[in-house]
Amino acid sequence: MAKTEVAAGVDIGGTNTVLGLVDREGRVHLDLAIPTHPQEGPAAFVTRLNSAIAEMVERPAAQCALKGVGIGAPNANYYRGTVESPPNLGWKGVVNVVEMVRRQHNVPIAITNDANAAALGEMIFGAAKGMKDFIVITLGTGLGSGIVCNGSLVYGADGFAGEIGHTIVDPEGRQCGCGRKGCLETYASATGICRTVFELLCNARAESVLRDIRPSELTAKMIADAARNGDAVAREAFESTGRILGLKLADSSAYTSPEAILLFGGLAQAGALLFEPTRRHMEASLLNIFRGKVKLLPSGLEEGNIAVLGASALIWNELLKR
Amino acid sequence: MAKTEVAAGVDIGGTNTVLGLVDREGRVHLDLAIPTHPQEGPAAFVTRLNSAIAEMVERPAAQCALKGVGIGAPNANYYRGTVESPPNLGWKGVVNVVEMVRRQHNVPIAITNDANAAALGEMIFGAAKGMKDFIVITLGTGLGSGIVCNGSLVYGADGFAGEIGHTIVDPEGRQCGCGRKGCLETYASATGICRTVFELLCNARAESVLRDIRPSELTAKMIADAARNGDAVAREAFESTGRILGLKLADSSAYTSPEAILLFGGLAQAGALLFEPTRRHMEASLLNIFRGKVKLLPSGLEEGNIAVLGASALIWNELLKR
Repeated sequence: MAKTEVAAGVDIGGTNTVLGLVDREGRVHLDLAIPTHPQEGPAAFVTRLNSAIAEMVERPAAQCALKGVGIGAPNANYYRGTVESPPNLGWKGVVNVVEMVRRQHNVPIAITNDANAAALGEMIFGAAKGMKDFIVITLGTGLGSGIVCNGSLVYGADGFAGEIGHTIVDPEGRQCGCGRKGCLETYASATGICRTVFELLCNARAESVLRDIRPSELTAKMIADAARNGDAVAREAFESTGRILGLKLADSSAYTSPEAILLFGGLAQAGALLFEPTRRHMEASLLNIFRGKVKLLPSGLEEGNIAVLGASALIWNELLKR
Repeated sequence: MAKTEVAAGVDIGGTNTVLGLVDREGRVHLDLAIPTHPQEGPAAFVTRLNSAIAEMVERPAAQCALKGVGIGAPNANYYRGTVESPPNLGWKGVVNVVEMVRRQHNVPIAITNDANAAALGEMIFGAAKGMKDFIVITLGTGLGSGIVCNGSLVYGADGFAGEIGHTIVDPEGRQCGCGRKGCLETYASATGICRTVFELLCNARAESVLRDIRPSELTAKMIADAARNGDAVAREAFESTGRILGLKLADSSAYTSPEAILLFGGLAQAGALLFEPTRRHMEASLLNIFRGKVKLLPSGLEEGNIAVLGASALIWNELLKR
């Protein structure tokens, strides 16, 4: 029986690293997770990662031929094949992950950050199939973005392009993890909407179930649940998030004139609660020549598989071009 | 004697249209200007334009073979070959300029807006030679921009990408010609710095020679001259312009991670008066991973020839690829 050609997709997270074998139609044949244990350092981690890839490929049930390994990781540099001082892994300096994986697996290896990988995943398997110009935004702890222009991911001069989460909403605004103030991700992200709730609880006197939740325990999902139950503060938090995100997505449209902007990640799971105000404010803020032309869409991939599909798309994107 | 291969570069302006014959090394062999007379309508204009191109090419002194015609024009759409409701020409609806020129000149014809053309001109003949990722900003009556990613101009889904002048500085800010408020070009342009002077004359009590100039007669050059003579209001106007422009260019860097940002046009002729505060504020506003990496440069083309060289580069960019 002919073996199925697969690319391994690897998503390195601060706690767990998820792996999967993905065929060219975007079917995930096998997946597994290993703990990242960042404190053990990059060498120990990559050794365990290499074993996990080998173990998956060699399983009798897999019956597959490995065509490459695509990796999504924080602070990853596509050009250099490196992960550079990732804050949530605590690895120091520059780690040449691609080279370390290639030593054991002699196939094409590529790395980029998770948002860029997701953009490729959407282009090849998801909601951006057939599009040549679009933007993918991930709304999790932070706001990540991948920008595709003319069918190619924008890496920029140094491989770190697509940091829309760090464009400035207000130079005197909220403190950001990057050391500056007022970055978009301090407003529009799962964390950002929690901060917006604190601001509303401070400024308004409205009653709210959110007053009964410890700030350290508040999540975007709790705010969405409260909003669905009609809580005024929660609803206002989504309105405010949509206003700021919509305005910045109008700016994004002025840069690259995308056919669509895709939103996914924890905060995007709020669905219409987030999409409706974001779409309304984006449309109102768009330059006239772009109005009514930029679609705001959810991911076309299964939430649990986005990271693995995206990482594998780094390989399929190259192989399918040939 | 072998004829020199040239591309005609055409820059359609509200008052005059400038034409030139440009060889592949960026030498302008012949140039001339015709009045645009926009009130006569597009058909009459293109007829005169076609004659002017023919007249140039047929001059005995030219000794050249026409390889194509590149056109820079306001509200031009590269994909459709059209000019669409250009405000400063007053033409209504969609004018298919490319088709109208091709009827008389059977060579490749292409059109885009002046900032996009300038970006191609800088890439092929100017300060961005050899660069694959950069942004060109023109600071004239408005703020135009051309974005190059991975060696290609970004046209976007509908051909109108690169409108950085219409990203928002302040949603409650200055009224813009586009019908919205607070667009970057209402602050950072030759017109924008004049408005900044009015704001400073309102808010501050400082003496200034600019109080003796009628607002309708104030120009960016007068402000630059006053600043060079130590006028406090004029100097503050450049500082304020550099702060807003620098902040937005830091945002631009987060989008596409350019190797360089090139500034040209009327306001950029102020030189260090504009570049110094813009560079300082941009650097202070950049995300850490981009700091010290993004060059802020003047155009590498002769100011008077940028438009014609840029328009001709639309053709050379295609021909040199082959």
